[in-house]
Amino acid sequence: MTLSVTVWNEGIHEQENEETQEIYPDGIGETMAAFFAEAGYETRVVRMQDPEHGLTEQVLAETDVLVWWGHAAHDDVDDDIADRVVEAVWDGMGYIALHSSHHAKPFMRLVGTDCDEKFRVAEERQRIWVTDPGHPIANGLPEAIVIPESEMYGEPHNIPQPEATVFISWFEGGEVFRSGCCWRRQRGRIFYFAPGHETYPIFHHDQVQQILVNAVEWAQPVQGAVDVTYRHSPDPPEPL
Amino acid sequence: MTLSVTVWNEGIHEQENEETQEIYPDGIGETMAAFFAEAGYETRVVRMQDPEHGLTEQVLAETDVLVWWGHAAHDDVDDDIADRVVEAVWDGMGYIALHSSHHAKPFMRLVGTDCDEKFRVAEERQRIWVTDPGHPIANGLPEAIVIPESEMYGEPHNIPQPEATVFISWFEGGEVFRSGCCWRRQRGRIFYFAPGHETYPIFHHDQVQQILVNAVEWAQPVQGAVDVTYRHSPDPPEPL
Amino acid sequence: MTLSVTVWNEGIHEQENEETQEIYPDGIGETMAAFFAEAGYETRVVRMQDPEHGLTEQVLAETDVLVWWGHAAHDDVDDDIADRVVEAVWDGMGYIALHSSHHAKPFMRLVGTDCDEKFRVAEERQRIWVTDPGHPIANGLPEAIVIPESEMYGEPHNIPQPEATVFISWFEGGEVFRSGCCWRRQRGRIFYFAPGHETYPIFHHDQVQQILVNAVEWAQPVQGAVDVTYRHSPDPPEPL
Amino acid sequence: MTLSVTVWNEGIHEQENEETQEIYPDGIGETMAAFFAEAGYETRVVRMQDPEHGLTEQVLAETDVLVWWGHAAHDDVDDDIADRVVEAVWDGMGYIALHSSHHAKPFMRLVGTDCDEKFRVAEERQRIWVTDPGHPIANGLPEAIVIPESEMYGEPHNIPQPEATVFISWFEGGEVFRSGCCWRRQRGRIFYFAPGHETYPIFHHDQVQQILVNAVEWAQPVQGAVDVTYRHSPDPPEPL
Repeated sequence: MTLSVTVWNEGIHEQENEETQEIYPDGIGETMAAFFAEAGYETRVVRMQDPEHGLTEQVLAETDVLVWWGHAAHDDVDDDIADRVVEAVWDGMGYIALHSSHHAKPFMRLVGTDCDEKFRVAEERQRIWVTDPGHPIANGLPEAIVIPESEMYGEPHNIPQPEATVFISWFEGGEVFRSGCCWRRQRGRIFYFAPGHETYPIFHHDQVQQILVNAVEWAQPVQGAVDVTYRHSPDPPEPL
Repeated sequence: MTLSVTVWNEGIHEQENEETQEIYPDGIGETMAAFFAEAGYETRVVRMQDPEHGLTEQVLAETDVLVWWGHAAHDDVDDDIADRVVEAVWDGMGYIALHSSHHAKPFMRLVGTDCDEKFRVAEERQRIWVTDPGHPIANGLPEAIVIPESEMYGEPHNIPQPEATVFISWFEGGEVFRSGCCWRRQRGRIFYFAPGHETYPIFHHDQVQQILVNAVEWAQPVQGAVDVTYRHSPDPPEPL
Repeated sequence: MTLSVTVWNEGIHEQENEETQEIYPDGIGETMAAFFAEAGYETRVVRMQDPEHGLTEQVLAETDVLVWWGHAAHDDVDDDIADRVVEAVWDGMGYIALHSSHHAKPFMRLVGTDCDEKFRVAEERQRIWVTDPGHPIANGLPEAIVIPESEMYGEPHNIPQPEATVFISWFEGGEVFRSGCCWRRQRGRIFYFAPGHETYPIFHHDQVQQILVNAVEWAQPVQGAVDVTYRHSPDPPEPL
Repeated sequence: MTLSVTVWNEGIHEQENEETQEIYPDGIGETMAAFFAEAGYETRVVRMQDPEHGLTEQVLAETDVLVWWGHAAHDDVDDDIADRVVEAVWDGMGYIALHSSHHAKPFMRLVGTDCDEKFRVAEERQRIWVTDPGHPIANGLPEAIVIPESEMYGEPHNIPQPEATVFISWFEGGEVFRSGCCWRRQRGRIFYFAPGHETYPIFHHDQVQQILVNAVEWAQPVQGAVDVTYRHSPDPPEPL
């Protein structure tokens, strides 16, 4: 079955930032959509500016994995739409939060922390080390990946202890960061990947693309148990 | 140092339910406050009906561990007050959610799931097994506790995999339930304890009292690291 | 790619126990092999009585997932062969430990505890509840499975907190048990499934078969990162 | 109650390595014992060369927390003594493994992996970042600690996902390492702390001493549940 990937792109830097326009002339979302399509996934791009932020009930119902990129306007996302995303994850949709999207409403509601961390934009070299070499999100990767210029994200990062810590990064300026982390919430799988600043060509990086393609594969919905019931259960399975 | 415990009591069944009035003539919250006081904790009771639900900034600032009991009116808790509780937990306040309070706003926001489960009120015998005998919340307990009549809460329970599963319950009618679960969110420790239906004398049960006294001790604030900084960090510790 | 499953069968009860002979005239291992083959897996059965317990270097190299059933002679397994199994798991082989095999040497070495629990053979009804309905090992299952007669295994069970708790069981006699638990050790995935006493037809139970087929799928080797190096690393990636 | 700390010191470098002799004229173990004593703990030092490696049944029975430092002769530790340590941890003794002691037999048996990692001795600056600022092992520490010259230990480190990751280190040469990790095994708490090479004055570092004093406090035995029974349980608590 072909997986269906929806890329949610905030869509602001493409309008306002010349560096972003130069690096991603087609937009950040479209750049991702292109490599997801090449990997064989059905792909669509939606934007914050679309009606209902592009996240209608129907779009979510048709989405296996939602990839979320935002950086400038987390607060402008409507609370009800954020809740709709959270509920879709609970029902099994995969959710990949990129870069600053640890501060997006759906991610924060799913993990339950404020997700604060250190940051600095100073063209620093970032070495991303694989810390869980047997994890499927590391499939085919070398033990370390170098991003020549990146925004520094540094610890401590206020997240719950991840269920798997796939990547930890080294930064030229002296910081470290858990850059690839996994959680599950009900039936949905969540992956946070830290690199992705809008003024560096990070989504053109072959190995970053490989990580995200792997992450979609990992985060896809699972069938799981069927006919599960909740709430009032008046009839005990054993006689009282 | 004396720990300061605040018991948050919804305060509705004491007004409306004759069984509750008979079992807890002083109120559910006061009953708990009494055994916490006997354990040597500074104790206060607040109610949903108090201004700001009794959870002013000052009350939270003075609280080491907040014990939360609600069952009938989770939706009536103000969103901003719920967020205030969440932030106090992030800053280190312990949080003990009792019985139906897995559906209270602060708990759901902290764990990130809908917390649904099965339930049935049918005077069932509940056997609470200690599944983590080396956990401090099990201090001094026997390996199993019997509650002669209890509300059934049954799996599946939509919670994230707990960091420790201290108790799992057996019910007469055939269900099981993870009845004592621990998580951490930033600096705060969270314990969920399932028993506590308002028409059974569960908070008069010696061993339940022991569990809750232990839980307060476990959930107390930790000093942790000092002078931690977040957000923009323009000066790298290493020369670029 | 077809998965290759090796079933390790202790092979003692088939020689000595008439009930086992009646229930499993072809042997416990062969019964499992048959339903794994029907699921499309390449399957072989090896026995403790085989040279090197049937677990030669070659057999392990050809095995994607090793399913282990033992109950009477854990101590008779050679230490070096047990270590060989552990190392194969570290390298990515899946390992499914059945019933009393939580006390088998490879399992105990992988999880690091004594794995003690309660037990009783008294024809008790066992209800296996799905506690993680979004887990792939629960694929296609109803929310609960009934085994009409089973050996009771009861908590506390001395295991490390599982990374996923897929099943918890209710027993007629009043106990509960975490009956389906997952861990990872290096590149290998480990699943413990508790039912499987040799005097009950448990491996003829359709839903038990479904669980084990799902577990093999889940436990299969993952490619993971490539060219990972360990030990002495004299050349720093950054200039000193 | 005064905690009783036993420091296990391999005791080889003090005999053979001039740098170690100069840095630790009293021995590595005695240096640690001194600051543990200053923190108010009852302290003793034992050595691999002592009868039964200094780890008699009586010594272990009297020990609340065992601190283990070894680097050159892990294989020379007797298997039965290693098992005795493991069993003491299962019964509640805290265990702190320092530096290369992730390759000591007790630690490997408790965590269940080969614990391999990268290493290099090249006088590198190590920055230890607090990644879990609310953890008691971080009590009173600043957000980062600098060790001017240290042995590099680098990822991937073959350990099970820690229950808490308290510290992650940055190294001058480009690597990162999870330098402070917690697990529990039955009733015992385990802390691994990576710094501690014998040719650098790391155990003279004030903040390293603070970490280890905190770790002893954290790892101390917990009372837990009492009268827990295991194995054959012929009498069901509920009538069959």
